Amino acid sequence: MSVTSRLVEVRQNVMKHNDVLARALRRRFQAEAIYVVSIVSSPGSGKTAFLERTLTMLRDRYRVAALVGDLATENDAARLARSQVPVKQITTGTICHLDAQMVESALAGWPPSKLDYLFVENVGNLVCPSSYDLGENLRLVLMSVTEGEDKPLKYPTIFNTADVAIISKIDLAAAAEFDLDLACANIQAVRPGIPILRVSAKTGVGLDEWLSFVQARREQFCAVTV
Amino acid sequence: MSVTSRLVEVRQNVMKHNDVLARALRRRFQAEAIYVVSIVSSPGSGKTAFLERTLTMLRDRYRVAALVGDLATENDAARLARSQVPVKQITTGTICHLDAQMVESALAGWPPSKLDYLFVENVGNLVCPSSYDLGENLRLVLMSVTEGEDKPLKYPTIFNTADVAIISKIDLAAAAEFDLDLACANIQAVRPGIPILRVSAKTGVGLDEWLSFVQARREQFCAVTV
Repeated sequence: MSVTSRLVEVRQNVMKHNDVLARALRRRFQAEAIYVVSIVSSPGSGKTAFLERTLTMLRDRYRVAALVGDLATENDAARLARSQVPVKQITTGTICHLDAQMVESALAGWPPSKLDYLFVENVGNLVCPSSYDLGENLRLVLMSVTEGEDKPLKYPTIFNTADVAIISKIDLAAAAEFDLDLACANIQAVRPGIPILRVSAKTGVGLDEWLSFVQARREQFCAVTV
Repeated sequence: MSVTSRLVEVRQNVMKHNDVLARALRRRFQAEAIYVVSIVSSPGSGKTAFLERTLTMLRDRYRVAALVGDLATENDAARLARSQVPVKQITTGTICHLDAQMVESALAGWPPSKLDYLFVENVGNLVCPSSYDLGENLRLVLMSVTEGEDKPLKYPTIFNTADVAIISKIDLAAAAEFDLDLACANIQAVRPGIPILRVSAKTGVGLDEWLSFVQARREQFCAVTV
């Protein structure tokens, strides 16, 4: 067997194994009424700033925690800890995505109390995370106005597997000469009907709409699972 | 054998196979006196705009061509074709990086004439391309001012395996509140001594310095190989 066909075979086994674990995680999250949101984007799109604002705004009314994946540093966990909710780092080494096993291991004995929301920030990458189900209820893909309007067409799988798209750094839209209509058309071209929200973690624009959106989704989730 | 250890074994074989092919490519490039520059960055850092300017500025004095890797679209090849040099797209499907085999296949019967420079634009990704030698002479990592100063610390392998770092979109530095000194310190922390250049493909700032740099490197290469 060639190296390539052996790699395909082993990859298929890895994916199957991940899917089994992810399904078990999803059942567990449903049983415990935890609404799980994963966030993917390229490096530097503003995932961590967006998540820090989200955690800070939710923490007074809900029990909230976050897992954050990164290759090498604990910088993101340190930043998210400023939101004063439980945060745990998953350091992936050279692996370009989180998988269900990493999420399951991180949840052993953590967090200390019951949760309403768990946020999972993936490694910054628009390719690798798309194939790995983490058992989440909502998969959020984030792109910033400085990345260009064509990203959905160039990375269709990550947009196609997402449940909601967030356009971030909207305060830089004019400086970056960002064409919002074109970006939205490109997102809809690869994932017709997906909700698209615009935010700036810096100015706060759009964050109320995002919180309303995620709370409404969680209420629907709880209505069917509890 | 567990799925994970089998995956590690197959990955090692794939890497070994890639290294053998990359060494053969490098010998071929030396024999033909082609100076090969690969470019890696995250999606939306401005690789294509930077490369379009580079090709346009070099084409009057040198024989230049470009290979461009992308998951799904031919947008980048279409943009680079405006530089009026031979451009060929490598569509990778769901694969998050180029490898030596893809480069070798793309060079079968192409380009039509001899070259002085070949540029290879990798898939937008700060993780996967780092382990794949493409037989290039110069590996360039590009990061934009909008991505944040911490990227070198968070993606150390890609910076550590690069020969030169380019900080792009420098015209947006003030709007993005970019700390250039901190970014340079972070690059030097993971790759001590690496040359760092600052450019804006939009305004043209820094492009002359970049052209001088790459021409000097090519002259050194020709001096030892021809």
